[in-house]
Amino acid sequence: MAHNEVFQYSIISALMDGVASHGTAISNILAHGDHGLGTFKNMFGEMIVLDGVVYQMKSDGTVELIESPADVITPFATVTRFQPTTHTKATIRGKQDLKDLLTGLFPSARNHFLAIRMDGVFKSINVRTAGGQQSPREGMTAVAGRQTVHTFGSVRGTIFGFRAPDYMMGINVAGDHMHFIDDGRKEGGHILAFETEGEIEVAAAQLSNFHLELPTEDDEFNEAALVKDAEGIHAVEG
Amino acid sequence: MAHNEVFQYSIISALMDGVASHGTAISNILAHGDHGLGTFKNMFGEMIVLDGVVYQMKSDGTVELIESPADVITPFATVTRFQPTTHTKATIRGKQDLKDLLTGLFPSARNHFLAIRMDGVFKSINVRTAGGQQSPREGMTAVAGRQTVHTFGSVRGTIFGFRAPDYMMGINVAGDHMHFIDDGRKEGGHILAFETEGEIEVAAAQLSNFHLELPTEDDEFNEAALVKDAEGIHAVEG
Repeated sequence: MAHNEVFQYSIISALMDGVASHGTAISNILAHGDHGLGTFKNMFGEMIVLDGVVYQMKSDGTVELIESPADVITPFATVTRFQPTTHTKATIRGKQDLKDLLTGLFPSARNHFLAIRMDGVFKSINVRTAGGQQSPREGMTAVAGRQTVHTFGSVRGTIFGFRAPDYMMGINVAGDHMHFIDDGRKEGGHILAFETEGEIEVAAAQLSNFHLELPTEDDEFNEAALVKDAEGIHAVEG
Repeated sequence: MAHNEVFQYSIISALMDGVASHGTAISNILAHGDHGLGTFKNMFGEMIVLDGVVYQMKSDGTVELIESPADVITPFATVTRFQPTTHTKATIRGKQDLKDLLTGLFPSARNHFLAIRMDGVFKSINVRTAGGQQSPREGMTAVAGRQTVHTFGSVRGTIFGFRAPDYMMGINVAGDHMHFIDDGRKEGGHILAFETEGEIEVAAAQLSNFHLELPTEDDEFNEAALVKDAEGIHAVEG
């Protein structure tokens, strides 16, 4: 796959419907991209992919490096072979600030994807980590209801994420969706809120090609209604 | 691109919003598939692609072979490199009959795409052909309001189309979406209704990979709201 294209396995509505018992090997994900995010089998933890390395950020606060990507399954992931086209430094006081910054940097990308990486020191970061399903087909709203929330202060690390256009809601998460991991690769998760400590490095690219691989031979996926639940997705992924 | 994957340029909601002044060369479409359907610049006519050959079926009832695919633009098309995995013969008495047949042939494809080709004699076929926009950004509902409808009786020809899963509505058309052309390549269009004359050949495949290329440097696409109008899409594409 070329640089700055989106590769995605499954759709977010499938996670909402609890389709998370099967999936694809993380080695397949890495064959299509070196930066991204996702989850793991049975929604155990949050995935971040940076420079081709995959980390599992768990609800007990620990982070695990995935050393054998061929042996680990993901039911949902989105990645890109990231080659930023825009570099800037910015002080960002929250998600709305980032939204405005990106819209200014990419005025013609209203209906396209963006990939965003931020490196630097964060004054505060609020993350959640999903603790996993308690039974097969348990939906994401129920799983997220038991999520662990961590707040980090003055931490150096990296945020990576995607902006997806509104019409992708249900397939991906419309809007900005980002994960964080600290420089020591010891803590992180799905970003609920963040604020930088002064200027950080921002690198981004517009993505105009989207490749979707659907689960096959997966009864859970085939049986799921996959009705778009925009409100539910915003509640658990916003 | 491998066999039996979907390649699509732009999204159906963009056509609904009248985004049809620009597009991609048909040679780009043919680089990704040899069977498919779509439309032309300013929604002038219906496109069908069979065995790597592209035809433009116009509202005046004529059919034009596209001899220079690099010189002709499409604002929306969906194609596949078609390699049917299922072959059968069937008598089909309408769209519902076809729907039931396909669901029986592919019981595990509820949330996947299908590609379908039917060759034989049709007792009656009811098609429409879009006559094109009267001004830039004129929406598809208005264009379809002026469509020409033709009915053919006892005609030998080919139907090709796709089934898209419900969650693709807005990006593609949920359900079965098919175009027809006769053996003489003299008449055809977007199928509204059809009935076979006895048994015809049915060839089909399940498609589990979807590749979407979005228009770039296209102000119309960037400015469009692209709000999913499921009812409107069903009305003009159903």
